[in-house]
Amino acid sequence: MSQKPKKSGQRQTVDGGPGDPLSPSRRRLLAGGLAGGTALASGAFSRSADAAKSIDGAPVLPDWTKYLGPGTDARSYGQPSQFESDVVRRNVEWLTATTESSVNFTPLHELDGIITPNGLCFERHHGGMAVVNPAEHRLMINGLVEQPLVFTVDELRRLPQENRIHFLECAANSGMEWHGAQLNGCQYTHGMVHCVQYTGVSLKLLLEQAGLKTSGKWVLAEGADSAAMSRSIPMEKALDDCLVAYSMNGERLRPEQGYPLRLVVPGFEGNMWVKWLRRLEVGDKAWYHREETSKYTDLLPDGTARKFTWLMEPKSVITSPSPQLPAIETGFNTIKGLAWSGNGKVKRVDVSLDGGVNWHTAKLHEPVLPKCLTRFTLDWEWSGDPALIQSRCIDETGYMQPTMAELQKVRGLESIYHNNGIQTWEIKKDGSAENVRLA
Amino acid sequence: MSQKPKKSGQRQTVDGGPGDPLSPSRRRLLAGGLAGGTALASGAFSRSADAAKSIDGAPVLPDWTKYLGPGTDARSYGQPSQFESDVVRRNVEWLTATTESSVNFTPLHELDGIITPNGLCFERHHGGMAVVNPAEHRLMINGLVEQPLVFTVDELRRLPQENRIHFLECAANSGMEWHGAQLNGCQYTHGMVHCVQYTGVSLKLLLEQAGLKTSGKWVLAEGADSAAMSRSIPMEKALDDCLVAYSMNGERLRPEQGYPLRLVVPGFEGNMWVKWLRRLEVGDKAWYHREETSKYTDLLPDGTARKFTWLMEPKSVITSPSPQLPAIETGFNTIKGLAWSGNGKVKRVDVSLDGGVNWHTAKLHEPVLPKCLTRFTLDWEWSGDPALIQSRCIDETGYMQPTMAELQKVRGLESIYHNNGIQTWEIKKDGSAENVRLA
Repeated sequence: MSQKPKKSGQRQTVDGGPGDPLSPSRRRLLAGGLAGGTALASGAFSRSADAAKSIDGAPVLPDWTKYLGPGTDARSYGQPSQFESDVVRRNVEWLTATTESSVNFTPLHELDGIITPNGLCFERHHGGMAVVNPAEHRLMINGLVEQPLVFTVDELRRLPQENRIHFLECAANSGMEWHGAQLNGCQYTHGMVHCVQYTGVSLKLLLEQAGLKTSGKWVLAEGADSAAMSRSIPMEKALDDCLVAYSMNGERLRPEQGYPLRLVVPGFEGNMWVKWLRRLEVGDKAWYHREETSKYTDLLPDGTARKFTWLMEPKSVITSPSPQLPAIETGFNTIKGLAWSGNGKVKRVDVSLDGGVNWHTAKLHEPVLPKCLTRFTLDWEWSGDPALIQSRCIDETGYMQPTMAELQKVRGLESIYHNNGIQTWEIKKDGSAENVRLA
Repeated sequence: MSQKPKKSGQRQTVDGGPGDPLSPSRRRLLAGGLAGGTALASGAFSRSADAAKSIDGAPVLPDWTKYLGPGTDARSYGQPSQFESDVVRRNVEWLTATTESSVNFTPLHELDGIITPNGLCFERHHGGMAVVNPAEHRLMINGLVEQPLVFTVDELRRLPQENRIHFLECAANSGMEWHGAQLNGCQYTHGMVHCVQYTGVSLKLLLEQAGLKTSGKWVLAEGADSAAMSRSIPMEKALDDCLVAYSMNGERLRPEQGYPLRLVVPGFEGNMWVKWLRRLEVGDKAWYHREETSKYTDLLPDGTARKFTWLMEPKSVITSPSPQLPAIETGFNTIKGLAWSGNGKVKRVDVSLDGGVNWHTAKLHEPVLPKCLTRFTLDWEWSGDPALIQSRCIDETGYMQPTMAELQKVRGLESIYHNNGIQTWEIKKDGSAENVRLA
C-alpha cells in the first residue's frame, strides 16, 4: 500500500511486434525455459508404466485412474471441485453495520472469460435476500397508462423474449479506493461487477401493452424485498434496451439476484436493476426516493452533489497477475484482464508495465458485445524487475479511462460512487502483486 | 407416441408479416386477452395497501416483504432457488447397466438463452467421474515431437489463452429416437448437448512447443480416468481450433466435465473432447481404440459401419412448448428453441406448425457464433387446434437439417449415433405436447 512516485512522460501507445519482448516467438516460450516443460522419455507416462514411477512428483497411476469414480446418478445439480473451495464470494466485515444491508464480491482474480458463473455473481441488498415464491409473485404496471396490468411470472414467459449478455456494476464498485490504495486484491477493488446472459421481456413492450400515456416521462421500479428498494428510470432509457428478466445464464434468476424477476438496465449502475421486481409505475417526474438522493449521488468538492449519474463509464482491471494470486515467476506470463463500458462496446484496451509511461495494445477476445465485459490479454516476458502494471479502456465513443489523479481533480475525494480510475498493481521482485497508488 | 400420417406438399418457407397470425401486432397481445393481464386500481398494490388484500390470489405483503432476508455472509457460493428443484439433470435408469458408464441429460426444456449453467451440463463417462487433484495432475505431450513435454496446470495457465463459446453434443444424442418416438421430452431426446464459454490453450500452440514432426498425422488424446478414455484426433483438426481447456463459464472445469483439463474439439462429437486429459501422443496413423471402432461408428443397412464420423451436423429442437412443460393456453405464446451446427454458424431456422408442410422463418437471437448454440423464437397465436410443431436448422454452408424419413433412407435403423433428424412435437387440444413420429 506504499505511495509510488508518479512517472512522467507522454502517455503513448506502442504496438507489440515480432521483435518486441511483449510478443515472444512461439519458440521462445519453450526456449526460454518454460518451468516444468520437462523432457521425458515417452514411455514413462504410458498406461503400462510402473505405478511406483513418478513424473515431477506426480503419481503416474493415481487413485482416480485405478478406481471407478461416482456414477452419473450422483449429481442432479453439479458443484465445483473440492479443490476450488477458495473460489468464493467474500464479504468485508467492517464495511457495513449488518450483512442484511451489505455486499459480497465476485472473485474476479480467479475467473476466466466473460461469463460469471451464477454462484459467484456478487450480491448487494438493502434488506437481506428476499426468498420469493414465484407462484405468489406478481408484476404490476400502473400510473400513467391506459390500462394497469398485473402479470404472473408464467405469463411473462409467454411473451416475446430477448436474450442479451450484459455486465452489471454497482455504482460503489472501487468506492473504497477514492482515498488511495485500500484493499489488496481485485475481488475487493473491482469485484462488484458480474456479467451473465439475461433472458426476459422488453420493458418497452410491457409499457406498450399497458398503453403508455404521452405524459409518462419516468418509470418507478419497485422491489418486493423488505427494503422495497425503488428507483426512478428515465423514460428514454425505459424505452431503449431495458428488460424484465427471469433468467440468467440459462436458468432462472438466483434468489440473491432478484428471483423471480429483476429489471435489467444495461450500462447503468447496478442499484437501478431492481431485484424481486413487483411494480413499475409510470409518472411525469422522478420520485427522488432514498436511493437516488441520500445514496447513489456523488458529493463534489464544492459541497454540491451530482444526481442521476447512472451511466457506468469505461473501466478495466488486470485480474492476473493481481494481489490475491500466487507470485508469478520470471519468463513468459499472460496478463489477463476485463474491460467494460456503459456506453457500448470496448474498442481498445492498453496495458502499461511502467506505471503509465508506455502503453501496449492488448488482444481483445471475441465476442466483444455492447455493455458487456470484454476479456483482454497481453503476452509478457517478465524479467524479474519490479513493474507497475495498469490497464485502460477506450470505448467506441472514444472515451478513455482516466487516471485516478485526473478523476480526483474533477470529483475530489468525498465521493463513494463512480470511480473508474486506472488501477495500478505493483509487481515486486518476488513476483507478488500489491495495490498501490501513483502520486 | 402415436404414428401420424405424413403430410404431403412442398416444403416451402413463408415469412411472417404484419397481417400474418404469427406476427400479431403489439396491441393484439393485450387485446387478445393475455391471461392475467388484469386491470386493477393502481392503489391496490402500493406499499400502503392492507396486507389482507390480495391480487389474483397473491398476497399483497407477503413474508418476504415484511421481514429481513438472509444477509450477504450466508452464501459464499450461490445456489438456485428452492422453487427450482425440478430443474435438474436426469438419468434414464434402463439405458445402461451401471451409472459409472452412463449419461445424464441437460434439462433443455427449462433453460433460456445459449449458456448452459455448469451445474446443468449433461455428463457422460465410461468409468465414473474422476476426482483429480490438480496439484498432482500433469499433461504430457509425446510421440512424434522433437521434445516431449510435461505441463502442470499452473504452467498451462501462464501460456497465451483463448476464450470461446462452443456447444458440445454427444454423438448418441437423440440416439434412442432412431426407431421412432421413444422418450417424452427434449431433455431425453436432445439433452446430451450443452454450451459454455471455454478458456484454455490452443492445442496447436502446445504441439508447436513440443516441436511437431512432419510425420505426425494424428494425435491420441488420453484421459486420466479409470477408463483411460482415448480418441484419435486428425492433425488437420488438432491444428485448427482445438483447445486444452481449464475453465468453463469463467470458473475452473467442473469435475464431471474433466477437471482440471479437457480437450475441446469444436463441432466434433463429444466423445472426442477427452476429459481429465493427461496425455497427447502424436502418431502417423489413427489408433483404432475401442471408442472409435466398437463404439461411435454408424452401422449401415448393408452391414458395414461408417467410421470417423466426427462432425455434428446441423440440428435443432423446439424447447418450449415441449412434452415436459405445462400445457400451453390458447392465445399468444412464444415458441423457443435451440439450433447448432458443427460446420460453423447457424444461418436460418425455420419452424413449421403443420408437420412440415409450411415453414416460417424464426428470429435468431444474438450472438450467433460458430459451433455454438443459437437461440431462436417465433411468435405464435395458438387457436386451440392440434398442431405438429417442428424446427429445422440451415447452416452457413447451406446444409438443411433432414427429416427423419430422409435420414433413415440413407442410414437405416441400426444406427445409434448422429441422428440430426427433424423432431416433431404434437400439440394436443388440451395444450399438452407429445413426442410423435411422422410416418
